[in-house]
Parts: sequence; structure tokens; C-alpha cells
Amino acid sequence: MTDTTSVSESAPDRATPSRQELAGQTVELGRARPLMLDCGVELGPFTMAYRTYGELNADKSNAILVCHALTGDQHVVDPPHTERSGWWELMVGSGRPLDTDRYFVICANVLGGCMGTEGPKEINPDTGEPWGLDFPVITIADMVRAQTLLLDHLGIDKLFCVIGGSMGAMQVLQFATAYPERTFAAVPIAGAGRHSAQNIAFHEVGRQAIMADPDWCDGDYLRQGTKPRRGLAVARMAAHVTYLSEAALHRKFGRRLQDRKSVTYGFDADFQVESYLRHQGSSFVDRFDANSYLYITRAMDYFDLAADHGGVLARAFEDTPVRYCVVSFTSDWLFPTSENREVVHALNAAAADVSFVEVDTDKGHDAFLLDEPEFFSVLNGFLEGCAHLAGLVGERRSNGQSAGGRVE
Amino acid sequence: MTDTTSVSESAPDRATPSRQELAGQTVELGRARPLMLDCGVELGPFTMAYRTYGELNADKSNAILVCHALTGDQHVVDPPHTERSGWWELMVGSGRPLDTDRYFVICANVLGGCMGTEGPKEINPDTGEPWGLDFPVITIADMVRAQTLLLDHLGIDKLFCVIGGSMGAMQVLQFATAYPERTFAAVPIAGAGRHSAQNIAFHEVGRQAIMADPDWCDGDYLRQGTKPRRGLAVARMAAHVTYLSEAALHRKFGRRLQDRKSVTYGFDADFQVESYLRHQGSSFVDRFDANSYLYITRAMDYFDLAADHGGVLARAFEDTPVRYCVVSFTSDWLFPTSENREVVHALNAAAADVSFVEVDTDKGHDAFLLDEPEFFSVLNGFLEGCAHLAGLVGERRSNGQSAGGRVE
Repeated sequence: MTDTTSVSESAPDRATPSRQELAGQTVELGRARPLMLDCGVELGPFTMAYRTYGELNADKSNAILVCHALTGDQHVVDPPHTERSGWWELMVGSGRPLDTDRYFVICANVLGGCMGTEGPKEINPDTGEPWGLDFPVITIADMVRAQTLLLDHLGIDKLFCVIGGSMGAMQVLQFATAYPERTFAAVPIAGAGRHSAQNIAFHEVGRQAIMADPDWCDGDYLRQGTKPRRGLAVARMAAHVTYLSEAALHRKFGRRLQDRKSVTYGFDADFQVESYLRHQGSSFVDRFDANSYLYITRAMDYFDLAADHGGVLARAFEDTPVRYCVVSFTSDWLFPTSENREVVHALNAAAADVSFVEVDTDKGHDAFLLDEPEFFSVLNGFLEGCAHLAGLVGERRSNGQSAGGRVE
Repeated sequence: MTDTTSVSESAPDRATPSRQELAGQTVELGRARPLMLDCGVELGPFTMAYRTYGELNADKSNAILVCHALTGDQHVVDPPHTERSGWWELMVGSGRPLDTDRYFVICANVLGGCMGTEGPKEINPDTGEPWGLDFPVITIADMVRAQTLLLDHLGIDKLFCVIGGSMGAMQVLQFATAYPERTFAAVPIAGAGRHSAQNIAFHEVGRQAIMADPDWCDGDYLRQGTKPRRGLAVARMAAHVTYLSEAALHRKFGRRLQDRKSVTYGFDADFQVESYLRHQGSSFVDRFDANSYLYITRAMDYFDLAADHGGVLARAFEDTPVRYCVVSFTSDWLFPTSENREVVHALNAAAADVSFVEVDTDKGHDAFLLDEPEFFSVLNGFLEGCAHLAGLVGERRSNGQSAGGRVE
């Protein structure tokens, strides 16, 4: 920690924590054997930033890998140097569905990210300059390969569970199908077996917004000492609308005005929803790297699990021993129930062990990050059952309460 | 016409038709009495550009006013100086639902537009410079007031029908409620009684994209001799996604690649849907003015018919003599059936004469511009019935066929 009680006025970096401090734990991977990426490039050594919560048990059988979404990070709980909460504090912790009194929870910043793991904003060891667009284009499978190296480093052969929402669900599906022998249970939430044309389109809008900003400098903005703030903010605003539902926007904002009694006949943020969106855009710019946004959206666009299995999604799950629980949300139009159901149908066609729940909510895609009792209840029930099957019953949580209410 | 058979090489404007040529017919309005805008500004004299199709009958009772959408224009059929079709050639013409052998069809470029009617890109007579952001912010009601001045100019007291989709539907609702005595029938298609929070949000993304472009020059780009091409293209791309449905995008593009056998691991337009979107963005820039985009989206955001009637939508329709036909499309998520149905419920509450049809299609919001036989059939039936009621039965169309199939 760099917290100081007396700081000279001239200390320039007082409010700027180091990469290491922001990253949590870091590990260098791929030195002995580089990571072979889908694009053909060998990457290594590279840094991976991660966090763990809870204790790994003696036989290393209680590990849960949490996979984060597009703009998430490894700080599921208790991020350093910020007033913000972790992005999944409702899900991870003592007495929560991913109970840290019982499970060893791991989350790593994805390859291509900007929170300490190797990505376009880090230094390319070959040049001593930021990677920028020289960073190789990565895929969801590459992200997952990097995660398996982290598990090797931690001495974990097999996960009790791999879980995540949105892009996290893509990683879950990739992990559980590429490494079924390393997966006991898998929970893809609000995901899909492939990125849809509509979602590719929305991502392309965001990328074009970033690349349209002259301060993007053809991706070289870090060396030029600038940042495509306006383009990245527009990309975030466009994406943010897709994370909510029309009902949620209507409930939260409707047509209410922002600190004014009537419209101003101008282009200020007359409406609360405009003010909210502008804030979402500008605050995102402070915490996210624009090139990372390009790389990670591209990885999602490229995801197509069936294509890797002769065009037949069910083949991805052939003879799988993994227990699946697929979750979708009724008002999610970015990864709608229909796309989650396609995964379930494929699992059924492969005679896999699968539960499927569509949670009724008006909160849209972001519901997987929010307080949804039915969702927590479902996860509690699924994980409890899996824990019994996996022989983790002796390791009780510290209190008898579940976070999400009674499991039915 | 400026078409010449011999043009010297130095003729700079050879391929650039004049404003007048692009506009069709124009008229100067508001000279005797300026138009009082909702924002309090008096506008006048101002130019209005319009087109007419068919012949006005002797008692001037066969006029149909077509109201265009956000990026539409007065050239419903046969636009000058372009290879493109008019935006509603399927709807307007001999034997079409708006049969030009029978009706006198009028369409005017909206106030604030960029196809000849007074708007931010035209010259402010007070300064001799383009209006830019000095153009007053206009509303849907202002657009409609301007249209009534055009009807006065044409000597038309009462419309047989006012019809339009999307923003056109807002104008239809505004016209028919503000001027019920001038309206026999009204057809709002894929519209709403107010702009939703989600739609305001999408518009705000587009405006921010334009205003983020340094070439926007705080709205002064015309005087600066530039154009916010990149920002306007991003705005168009973001909007264009909302005009389609996920199903339509999947059917048209899916995950098919653009002229390549495999992905390139880069940020080129690997996918057809990306290439399509980029084309939509860049071609739009050539035909639309960025400031007009700001003004017209703002007018839509401000539209709230109930708010003008004490918060009760039904009051807008109290004692209305107008015959309404409300049309929505199942896969339209921008102006979904639920919002169109709210208008119908209000009309029902006011005991108004209303038909409502939800057309089953996967084509999304843009369905109102496309070949939808059920839609044409509905309009044929409704207009036929209204023509009988209005005593227009003697004026038959030139052929016995309807454009949209048999009327049921």
C-alpha cells in the first residue's frame, strides 16, 4: 500500500498507484514455453494479474474460476485504490453463493486487458514501448489458455467450478469444452455459443467511435502522450444502452429532466438519461484503455464454439463429464434467452448434465451483476448439489445462511 | 436543369446540382406572419422544399400529406440527381396504396432538415452565413406548423389523410391532434406518443459521436470548410443497428465473412455486417448534414403528446372526428408494438374511430419502408374505406390492381 500520512506537495505520483498495486497479485507465465495464440503468434513471457479469495483446501479441489466480462477485471471483491465496490461482491464472499469460507475463488484479468495482465497498454519487452496495435489479436480461447497456465502455476489440476457472465460465459463454455477433464461444474450466465451479427454490429460501432477519434493516433496514443477520450466515451455510451432494458431505463429515468423544470431547447443534457449516459462515458475513460476495448470486443466477435467443432454445437459437448447450469434473464436483449437456450439444446443433444434457468427480471443484460434473489437461489442450489457430488460436503460455510434466500 | 452536353474541364460544379435542383419545388413561407416556434423564436420568412405527386381534384379533397422520418426527405418517389430510389416508391404511385391516379400526395422536407427546407445548413438571412447552431431548436409541433403553412399555400383546407412512419408517425399524431378539423384520416406507423428513455439514449449517443468529432467545430464546420464525417458516420452506424432486428441481421449477414475465407486477426471489416455498417455510415455522410441530425433527433426526443395535454394521452384525442389506423411491426424494438398500443388505448379511451394492426415481420423498425404485403393490404383496406366515407369513390385508380394484394 502506498497510503501515506504526510506527502510533500511536490510528490507527483501521490494519487497514481503503480501497475503492481492496481493489479493485485501478478505472475509471469509462458517463459519456459510460450503461449501459442490462435493468430499464430507465440506470446511469452507475459504477465497475468489476478486475485484470489478464500483458501485452497488440502487436495486443491475447491477452486472456482470466475471469468470477467468485457469491462470487468480481477477485482471481484474489494478493488484497491478506489471507492468503488468489486463488480461481483453480491456473489463472492462469506455466506455468498461463491462462499469464500468454503471455496477458493480465483479471478484473473483477461489477456488483452488493461488491469495488469499483458495487453496493448503494457510494455512490449522487445521494444521497451507500449504494445499498442503490435499486441497480437487474441481470442476467447487464448484468454482461456492463459488461465490454464495460471491454474498450473497455482497447482490446481481441476476446477470445482468455472463461472462467468456475458464474455465470462464465453470463457466458461470455452474452458469447459476445451478442458473437460479440468472442470467439475460450469455456469455460463447470459452468454451464447457464438457472437451474433447484431452484437458484432454494436461492437463495430464502438470500435469505429474509438478509431474515429484523432487522439487514437492509429493506436499509438500512449507513445504520443494522449488518449482517445471522446471516442472511448461514445463507445461506452453506445454499449451501455445495450446492457440495460427499455423497462429498466423507463423505470430509472423515464423522460425526467435533469435539474431543470423544462427543456432548454438546446443540446445540453436536458434528460436524466442523457446525463447518466454522459457520466457512464466519461468515468469509463478514466478506468479503461481504448486499445484493450478494441482487442476484447474483437475476441468476443470471433467467438463461435460450433465453428470449432465442424459447425455442430452439440459436438463441443460430446461425452462431457461436466455439470452445466445455464442462466439467462428475460429482459436481456444482448444475449437473449434464445441464444442461451441454443447452448442448452446442444448440451441436451449431447446428453450432458445440464440445468437451465431463465430468471424473470426487467434489468436487462446487467442483471447478472445485480441483486436478483432468484438468480442467487438458483446458484446456491446448483453449487450445493455439485459440492455434494464432488465430496466437498465436509467444508461448511461459516454461517448457515445463504446470500440469496432459501434454496428450493 | 443544368445538364449540359459539353462541359469545359474547368467547370467545377458540373456534378453538384444546386439547392433548388435538389429540393424539387420550394416556397417561401412565413413572410406575412412569421412562424412562432415552441422555443419562443419567430422564424420567417423561411423556405420549404416539397414534392407533389398526382393531381389535386377540383374540390381539393384528395390530398395526402406524407411525413418523412429522421433521415428521409421530400423525394418519396423519383429523387433528382441520384441513382437511388425514392424512400417510399413501394407505397406511392400509380396503383400503389397511396395511388397517385387518385390522390394528390404531398411530402415536404421537415423544418430543420437539409434537403432544401430551412435548417442549420441553410443561409441565415440576418448574417449571410450558414445558420449552424444559431438555427432555433425545433419541435415536432414546429415541423407540423410549417406543414400547415404549406397546405395554406397550396389552398388545401383539409387533408384526406396524413401518414408517416417513425418520426413521420409523430408528425401524424401531432397534425391530427392539433388540427383535427384539417384531417379526415390519420395513419401513424411504427411510432409512439412520446420518445422513450431508451430512444433518447440512442439519440444522445449519436449526438455525442458528432459533437466528439473535432471537425464538428462546435457546429461551425460549414464556415470552417470542413465536415464531421467520422462522427456523423458513427452516429449513423449506431442508429442503423436499431432500425433492424436481430433476426434480420442474422438472416442478412449472420457471421459470414466479407470477401475472405477466414478471420484476419485484426480490425478490418472481417464480417459482412461490419462492412455493411461502414458503408451505411460513409454513404450517409454524403447525403446528410450533421447539424440537421442534431436538430431532428432533438425534436424527436422532445416529443411527448400526453405532456401537452395535462399528462393524459387520451385528452389529446378528445372528441376527435379523425379516423385513425395505427400500425406496428412485431420485430420493431425501437418503436415496439407496446408503444403503438399505448396510442391505441388512448384513442379507445377517447372513443375515437381507430383500427390497429400489428404486422408480423422479422424486418424490424425499417419494415415500414420495405415490401410487406400485409402492411400494404391493411393500408389499401383502410384508405378504401375512408375514400368511400369521404366521397372520393368516383375517382378510381387507373388499374384495378392494388399494390399490396387483395384487400380482406
